Amino acid sequence: METLIDVVKKQYKETESKIVMLVFDGLGGLPDPKTELTELETAKTPNLDKLAYKSEVGLSLPVGAGITPGSGPGHLGLFGYDPIKYLIGRGILEALGIDFPIEEGDICIRANFCTLDKNGNITDRRAGRIPTSESRLICDQIDGMEFDGVKVIVRSVKDHRCVVVLRGKGLSADIADTDPQQCGVKPLPAVALSEGAQKAADVLNKFLKEVQETLKVQPKANMILLRGISSKPDLPSMKERYGLNCAAIAAYPMYRGLAKVVGMDVLKTGTTIEDEINTLKEVWDKYTFFFVHVKGTDAAGEDGDFMRKVKVIEDVDKWIPDILKLKPDCLVVCGDHSTPAMMKSHSWHGVPLLINSNLTRYDKIKKFGESECRFGSLVNIPAVNIMPLALACAGKLEKYGA
Amino acid sequence: METLIDVVKKQYKETESKIVMLVFDGLGGLPDPKTELTELETAKTPNLDKLAYKSEVGLSLPVGAGITPGSGPGHLGLFGYDPIKYLIGRGILEALGIDFPIEEGDICIRANFCTLDKNGNITDRRAGRIPTSESRLICDQIDGMEFDGVKVIVRSVKDHRCVVVLRGKGLSADIADTDPQQCGVKPLPAVALSEGAQKAADVLNKFLKEVQETLKVQPKANMILLRGISSKPDLPSMKERYGLNCAAIAAYPMYRGLAKVVGMDVLKTGTTIEDEINTLKEVWDKYTFFFVHVKGTDAAGEDGDFMRKVKVIEDVDKWIPDILKLKPDCLVVCGDHSTPAMMKSHSWHGVPLLINSNLTRYDKIKKFGESECRFGSLVNIPAVNIMPLALACAGKLEKYGA
Repeated sequence: METLIDVVKKQYKETESKIVMLVFDGLGGLPDPKTELTELETAKTPNLDKLAYKSEVGLSLPVGAGITPGSGPGHLGLFGYDPIKYLIGRGILEALGIDFPIEEGDICIRANFCTLDKNGNITDRRAGRIPTSESRLICDQIDGMEFDGVKVIVRSVKDHRCVVVLRGKGLSADIADTDPQQCGVKPLPAVALSEGAQKAADVLNKFLKEVQETLKVQPKANMILLRGISSKPDLPSMKERYGLNCAAIAAYPMYRGLAKVVGMDVLKTGTTIEDEINTLKEVWDKYTFFFVHVKGTDAAGEDGDFMRKVKVIEDVDKWIPDILKLKPDCLVVCGDHSTPAMMKSHSWHGVPLLINSNLTRYDKIKKFGESECRFGSLVNIPAVNIMPLALACAGKLEKYGA
Repeated sequence: METLIDVVKKQYKETESKIVMLVFDGLGGLPDPKTELTELETAKTPNLDKLAYKSEVGLSLPVGAGITPGSGPGHLGLFGYDPIKYLIGRGILEALGIDFPIEEGDICIRANFCTLDKNGNITDRRAGRIPTSESRLICDQIDGMEFDGVKVIVRSVKDHRCVVVLRGKGLSADIADTDPQQCGVKPLPAVALSEGAQKAADVLNKFLKEVQETLKVQPKANMILLRGISSKPDLPSMKERYGLNCAAIAAYPMYRGLAKVVGMDVLKTGTTIEDEINTLKEVWDKYTFFFVHVKGTDAAGEDGDFMRKVKVIEDVDKWIPDILKLKPDCLVVCGDHSTPAMMKSHSWHGVPLLINSNLTRYDKIKKFGESECRFGSLVNIPAVNIMPLALACAGKLEKYGA
């Protein structure tokens, strides 16, 4: 049956109007029991507060009640792709994130260097988090092998993380992780989960045997663990779906990769919010949709650093007037999921959301935060509904039916 | 998969209890930036406000986030028919609206008289909006032709608008519009979008050729443009679905047509709200569901006349006590979509909604308007959920499951 997005696909029109989607990664939080305020509520955000008064606000549900999303589903939802229908493998995301030129049919795998003891049991699943400078050399040692006509490419990502790519004919990614997610046991063999994946599993097992042999002289990174074995998802681009020319302004590989999956142009930018805003200004005339990604909120949340998360939010708040000066037809301020500092992890909680345009109602809240967003008109909306609303506010959706 | 409505269909029971659905067309609005109040919030509505206090209120979503509905989808939603599943063509709506007796298999088309220059290019897509008195005569000139055993019926609607009906065997409506939606170009030929529609497309092209020949002496209305080529949708009636005996009290053709599509008895009434309320009183004993339609709010919104829309709402408010005196078991006050005066068009925004019965909770809002409805228990409910709630409030739905 047709869905809301099918309707959107039929009704969109290409216009020059511009949408900015400012994504605070892991924006939502939980209250500090002492102050009863979340990270966002603790932060001094005069600019976001002023904006929120004349905006529609609410809490978005990334996937559904109780579901904690990874970065992939979290962002796909914001881009309007049902994260239950479309799941992007971790391997693909890692490969895209390092600008690896994925070819049709490639199998991509997220791999971690690990440490095995002399019995072959895992003692450190991250090989002492060896620095990138080291892991890059080790990657070179195991790169370029070939088994059964399948080429195995290995690329360093960051620290102990790398990407393994299988390139050849007739490969399927339906293979279980070899990372047992615990120490004291041996890495698992690559097991095909369906008949068609046997060839790729065989190649991986031959490869893993060679890797163990090659790396046995290494003190720390003497083996690899495989996760998220995946092939490129067949997603329609945001251009096809919404008629948008999309720019991604994101510092971190994962989010650059996600943007590429939905067909955005991924722009060169720096690592600070100032760099990102400068990039936004530079390319303003060239695009109609801008995905601006703030990683700091999630990183601080994952570290359990409540006050650092507060600080990141306050820093970004200072740049809101610069964004508004560009006069976007619609500005969306949102998050891909919650990352409460007290949980040190992603969570399922609703994520503060603000949609501002000349065509939004005034929800008249005084402070952009979880408690007040609860009374907004967008409370509990599925994240996939944000794009249709933004398109409507920017005058990009035609009337449906007579 | 079964939907909510499938459950409703199994659980309803026919009772004598009565439901009134008062539909303000285009009820929802946007705030005047000076007062920060919408049209409904600006209107003095003591009767609706008093009622709202003891009602469940909210904002209904006609189709879905960001989707601006036409009158068809807007009303189908209110009647409980998923507007994404059921889409009624413009041609059918126009034909029903003039009480044209549609027969099984008829293809109905909305047609506009237009003006062509001597090269055959369109100079006015509405033929100078010629008055109905003129267009009626011109319709007569091109009515009653026959091609390949298919009869072509032409009926005047209003001003430059008319309806063309193809009546014959083996016709499909899967044909693109011939209206190019711009001046300076020729009308498009009728193009079949699927194989089965070739016969109807051929008939239309022969008809269009004859029309152009016949009308070449006309100064303004010398050709027609075809839109919304459609056949009658196969909708279950409200009687079949809910066990209701339905009366439609609506002055405008389009809404009378929509009511007919779902099997309502369309009653003779006048053009004012007073006429409509009088009709309601007269037929009160004969039906169990009453659709009362107010067109003025939408018309004022479309004209960008904020204060006229306010006035229409105030005028209708005065009649609320008369409706309540009839003691409906459930009174629904709602809109098919928003038509903010500042947009001069339909919009996607949530629509104020009020459901009153002895069995509704008290949402205790002080003013029936967008801002306060946001805090109601029915905030953001899909319009298709209104009928099940109304049926429940009127004691017409049995317990589901043991």
